Amino acid sequence: MTLIVKKFGGSSVATPEKIVNVARRILQEKKDGERIVVVVSAMGDTTDELIDLMKSVNDRPNGREIDMLLSTGEQVSIALLAMAFARLGHPAISLTGAQAGIATTVQHNKAKIQRVEPGRILAELAKGQIVVVAGFQGVNAAGDITTLGRGGSDTTAVALAGALKADACEIFTDVKGVYSADPRLVPRARKMQEITYNEMLEMARLGAVVMQPRSVEMGKSYGVPIHVRSTFTSEPGTYIREEYTMEEREFVVRGVAHDLNVAKLAVLGVPDRPGIAYKLFSALANANIDVDMIVQSIRNADKNINDILFTVSQQDLPRAREIVEHTAKELGALGVVADENVAKVSVVGAGMLGSPGIAAQMFGALADAGVNIEVISTSEISISCLIRADQVKEAVNSIHSRFFPDK
Amino acid sequence: MTLIVKKFGGSSVATPEKIVNVARRILQEKKDGERIVVVVSAMGDTTDELIDLMKSVNDRPNGREIDMLLSTGEQVSIALLAMAFARLGHPAISLTGAQAGIATTVQHNKAKIQRVEPGRILAELAKGQIVVVAGFQGVNAAGDITTLGRGGSDTTAVALAGALKADACEIFTDVKGVYSADPRLVPRARKMQEITYNEMLEMARLGAVVMQPRSVEMGKSYGVPIHVRSTFTSEPGTYIREEYTMEEREFVVRGVAHDLNVAKLAVLGVPDRPGIAYKLFSALANANIDVDMIVQSIRNADKNINDILFTVSQQDLPRAREIVEHTAKELGALGVVADENVAKVSVVGAGMLGSPGIAAQMFGALADAGVNIEVISTSEISISCLIRADQVKEAVNSIHSRFFPDK
Repeated sequence: MTLIVKKFGGSSVATPEKIVNVARRILQEKKDGERIVVVVSAMGDTTDELIDLMKSVNDRPNGREIDMLLSTGEQVSIALLAMAFARLGHPAISLTGAQAGIATTVQHNKAKIQRVEPGRILAELAKGQIVVVAGFQGVNAAGDITTLGRGGSDTTAVALAGALKADACEIFTDVKGVYSADPRLVPRARKMQEITYNEMLEMARLGAVVMQPRSVEMGKSYGVPIHVRSTFTSEPGTYIREEYTMEEREFVVRGVAHDLNVAKLAVLGVPDRPGIAYKLFSALANANIDVDMIVQSIRNADKNINDILFTVSQQDLPRAREIVEHTAKELGALGVVADENVAKVSVVGAGMLGSPGIAAQMFGALADAGVNIEVISTSEISISCLIRADQVKEAVNSIHSRFFPDK
Repeated sequence: MTLIVKKFGGSSVATPEKIVNVARRILQEKKDGERIVVVVSAMGDTTDELIDLMKSVNDRPNGREIDMLLSTGEQVSIALLAMAFARLGHPAISLTGAQAGIATTVQHNKAKIQRVEPGRILAELAKGQIVVVAGFQGVNAAGDITTLGRGGSDTTAVALAGALKADACEIFTDVKGVYSADPRLVPRARKMQEITYNEMLEMARLGAVVMQPRSVEMGKSYGVPIHVRSTFTSEPGTYIREEYTMEEREFVVRGVAHDLNVAKLAVLGVPDRPGIAYKLFSALANANIDVDMIVQSIRNADKNINDILFTVSQQDLPRAREIVEHTAKELGALGVVADENVAKVSVVGAGMLGSPGIAAQMFGALADAGVNIEVISTSEISISCLIRADQVKEAVNSIHSRFFPDK
């Protein structure tokens, strides 16, 4: 008997009317005998309102108490959604994360799902109920409520789908699926029918915001096909799977991603000695700062001095700069330059390794658009270029036109 | 080591500032080594807001889902209060009803506490934490969240005090204690130092709203002394106990209660046959309607017909009237008269049985105030009179002056 897990985010359940609409929509699509588990987030801005309330009591509260507070947001949504199903004539029951058997690690605010004990869910499904589960939350071994951190409701849905051996996990969003580029920047961006877990993870890492990487990773490890689709239409969205189901794929490059949350740091005139890079990057790693796109170039071969350049996220820039300036002084470097006015554009595609010339085409597209490339980095399934932030739109459109020509 | 349970209602924790004030107040009064459990209700109007939200989704929701929804109100309060203690430098931990071991009967919205498993509370107290427990809620054998119905937070506090063998259970309110009459009506009403469980129960039954009867009953059965005191001052309030601790009590009558939530129903010209009253009142009992102050009087002794008169609460009047009119027709009665413009005034005192003349003094006080008595009823520890609703203030003041003369 088919079992489908469906996840609706906070904006889909922001008002009582929207909650009733979600219930109506699910019932309209439901086939006879189909078993349905719905995962929901907190209504609209509820979580932000709770955080405001919290900050006016204590600006550095304990993690356990934050979770006690924030988990009420989803608890309100699940009760209301279960009531909405009942109003529309279908039996439904709401379950908190704990009641749904979502066992997590002990740490609060960013707990990880350790296992799902789906006994109660299966029992309620067997009674013919639609089961409505609170996203974003679980219970740890101490019996305390935990939350999963950002994108946690997606993770809940995928984990439940895995544990319940669901036929599908549908993630409803305000976009129609995964696009070949951000449609707000690239009007001709195409909705993809399917994409692999690895491509989706790479797209997310490189700036695409449709799905949180953690839930995609979980889908990959449980082998759960994820269907990203629109809250507003019933047409199919994009399937995220291990492999393509179609024999041929039209395009080698599957998507163009961009990321404006990038800052560049350059350490100039570093002596060319072994262990220099280690010293610099271990200091950053100790401060828990993620570093990307590292390039070392020769400044002056005669004097044996180099420039080292890399990128960090904009929120990490102040701390990274401080650490790097301190280390640069120790190393006897000439100086440190920071630049926030940069962006990263990338192409992603699992078949790129077997298709030479992708990089050349990307550079050509950037040249056509008059965009200068500052740094290049590559992975097995992507190529990224650092450019000026104010040229992102031209850059992404030019690359997209090159790889996705109009028919 | 002393252990005190303190309960604060919704108005005491209506805003973040008030929550911090409650925490500060508790810490100021706390003695070294004293163990403290705090029970709180939902913030201010939260419960009403959740009910509004609910009604816009489903106007007749399932009881289980109502409890799932409403229990979030207290969960928000406990998290914030624990955060407030932390901000003021004292470790604290919040526990939901389920985490606090409050096991209830299965029925939702009006579950009864069956037992308290205080293991977790005791463990947290042993770590030096102030334990903040969500009032009004528990968990049933199915693992579902239940709520205790009206006045439930008082019941939670008293039940915890009983299970923890607490030295005291303090109920903080916006009044200074239990008064000899409602101070809003009787400016000279006196705060009582102590009152017995039975007197308090009778006062509550007859309209006094300081404590819900269920929590007083629970205090009586566990032998927990309840201290009703003010949120705003640190002076002692009123102790509710099994027996008076002082040798002599100044007054036989301990309080004057009044109740405006009363309606009168009269069935006129009922044939005087056995089984008539049974027929009438069993029909009302089957509809779960509480009946009070029943009086049967002879209308016409020659024709063997009587009038039967009784009171119900105003919200029960429409249904009660319908049932009574139906039954009256069956019985061949002359007619039914309903009157909402009535009120009940009562005097309460455990020693009344041994003090003759209390009734006469009460009737005299009402006569002095020009108040006509429509119905009289008595219990072991109270005398009640039904009067016109618009004469309540004069009636209560006149009775109060008679039994509590100014010194």
